[in-house]
Amino acid sequence: MIILNKQQILDKFDADAVTLLLKSGFIAFSQKQVQMPPVQHLLFEQAEGDCCIKSGYLQGDSQFVVKISSGFYHNPTQGLSSNQGLMMAFSAQTGEPQALLLDEGWLTALRTALAGRIVAELCAPQHIRAIGIVGTGMQARLHLMYMKSVISCRQLWVWGRSETALEEYRQYAEEEGFEVNTTLDAAELGRHCQFIVTTTPSREAILQAADIQPGTHITAVGADGAGKHELTPELVAKSDKILVDSWAQCTEFGEISSAFQQQLLVNHTLTEIGTALAQNSAFRDNEQQITLADLTGLGIQDVQIVKGILRC
Amino acid sequence: MIILNKQQILDKFDADAVTLLLKSGFIAFSQKQVQMPPVQHLLFEQAEGDCCIKSGYLQGDSQFVVKISSGFYHNPTQGLSSNQGLMMAFSAQTGEPQALLLDEGWLTALRTALAGRIVAELCAPQHIRAIGIVGTGMQARLHLMYMKSVISCRQLWVWGRSETALEEYRQYAEEEGFEVNTTLDAAELGRHCQFIVTTTPSREAILQAADIQPGTHITAVGADGAGKHELTPELVAKSDKILVDSWAQCTEFGEISSAFQQQLLVNHTLTEIGTALAQNSAFRDNEQQITLADLTGLGIQDVQIVKGILRC
Repeated sequence: MIILNKQQILDKFDADAVTLLLKSGFIAFSQKQVQMPPVQHLLFEQAEGDCCIKSGYLQGDSQFVVKISSGFYHNPTQGLSSNQGLMMAFSAQTGEPQALLLDEGWLTALRTALAGRIVAELCAPQHIRAIGIVGTGMQARLHLMYMKSVISCRQLWVWGRSETALEEYRQYAEEEGFEVNTTLDAAELGRHCQFIVTTTPSREAILQAADIQPGTHITAVGADGAGKHELTPELVAKSDKILVDSWAQCTEFGEISSAFQQQLLVNHTLTEIGTALAQNSAFRDNEQQITLADLTGLGIQDVQIVKGILRC
Repeated sequence: MIILNKQQILDKFDADAVTLLLKSGFIAFSQKQVQMPPVQHLLFEQAEGDCCIKSGYLQGDSQFVVKISSGFYHNPTQGLSSNQGLMMAFSAQTGEPQALLLDEGWLTALRTALAGRIVAELCAPQHIRAIGIVGTGMQARLHLMYMKSVISCRQLWVWGRSETALEEYRQYAEEEGFEVNTTLDAAELGRHCQFIVTTTPSREAILQAADIQPGTHITAVGADGAGKHELTPELVAKSDKILVDSWAQCTEFGEISSAFQQQLLVNHTLTEIGTALAQNSAFRDNEQQITLADLTGLGIQDVQIVKGILRC
């Protein structure tokens, strides 16, 4: 069995190759060619931790993948990352373990950010005066880094709850080549930006319907479990077109779930990313539409990024 | 992270110490102190393989356990074991991976056989003229090996579908100190035996109600998924007392599930092993009762056997 540590994994990571694999994975998922059992969840209340276990198999592949990923929110006080985890590949011919990827949660972070890049290709308006990033953490950074190859705009607004975190993010984004404005007022970000990514684990809405202008796209990444949301249900319902990674997951616990469960989306079509990719055309019909993409994270993304690492 | 291979794991395995851990695990499970998410299943039709993923956490423990175990039924033609798998332990304080146990399915086999020993202590009649083993595979061997310390009878009947397999089993059992009779007729085994263990993955009943005498105990190990059964529903219903490892699992897909779903058990109490152990007395009330134990396998058994290996 191959065992790779974080550095070995990152050395083998090729963002463009993995992006192509993710696209074919999303398409296969929407075409029902993927086995993805319901996610297992464990809770560790005393340690303020949780763990989720995902597995997946793309029909015809020579391997299947199991991922154990966790968040333990006291870890930083001990100098440890909150996110921990590993991925494993097993032979789909014999069941033998083939590879253990001790990625410490990085592969999940990377495949999430690359899904954001795929969404940007499908949904971004042609004319973007400024990009808006809601949040200052790891996803806020990775999304910006990978967006650069598909969006040419280098004007940036960043929203956060802490001046310190905003200044740290400013430094990061300036090194990435952006002109950076920071704000504690999400409405201000909404007024200036036509391409917005929300990346926080918030349980209270940060952006309101009135904050968003026609011709804007929003990618909502933070809501990946019951109770988390970054947009009001009214803002979700105000969107002209909605993209979801998984109809089942997004309506159950994604950003759109509240609006869906409140019957605010009865006149909307929820299109899966894989379906949109298979159509091979832009998701946005015109420059006036508000588009929204809801990313909850799929086991097939784990399958595909592991494939990308092991093929290198 | 500690990595142990099969031999290192078997060297650390102490059957008596693990049995005590399994008993406390069954009790904790029945007292609702265990998190055990629903099992994930993957199917690999072309390779005639399947994989199940179990996880568990006993409240208050310092670690949680994830198990990936599979059966690939073409493997023996390549000189590989059908059963493959591994177990992992993670910190319940930080989520960090602590140990990888490359047990190739052995820990599952061992904890299953030791559960059978625990059942024998609870249910065996006082006077056993002969033990009956249905099946000739790994569980048929391990159950016999571990039964020896709690049942003194050394007369054995074995049922199988193949004379060759029966002769191989005879040789094994004689080395274990038994006087062995083999048969291709399960009813003959039923007539002679007061303690019977069924260990096959059969999808057709092997033992009928008329085959079993008063004062017999049956441990049914083979049925661990939809469609598998070794006893007719009438035989299940003929039992005076029924023990289950998990009420939820056994009624859904265990040996008793058909009888349960056909409403044949409305006058029976289904007692969990953990509940019976907590009462600290024999499960059998008298020497005339037919007792039945249904073992489907619990994530808490994996948690406890990993604990037993890592503590040594």
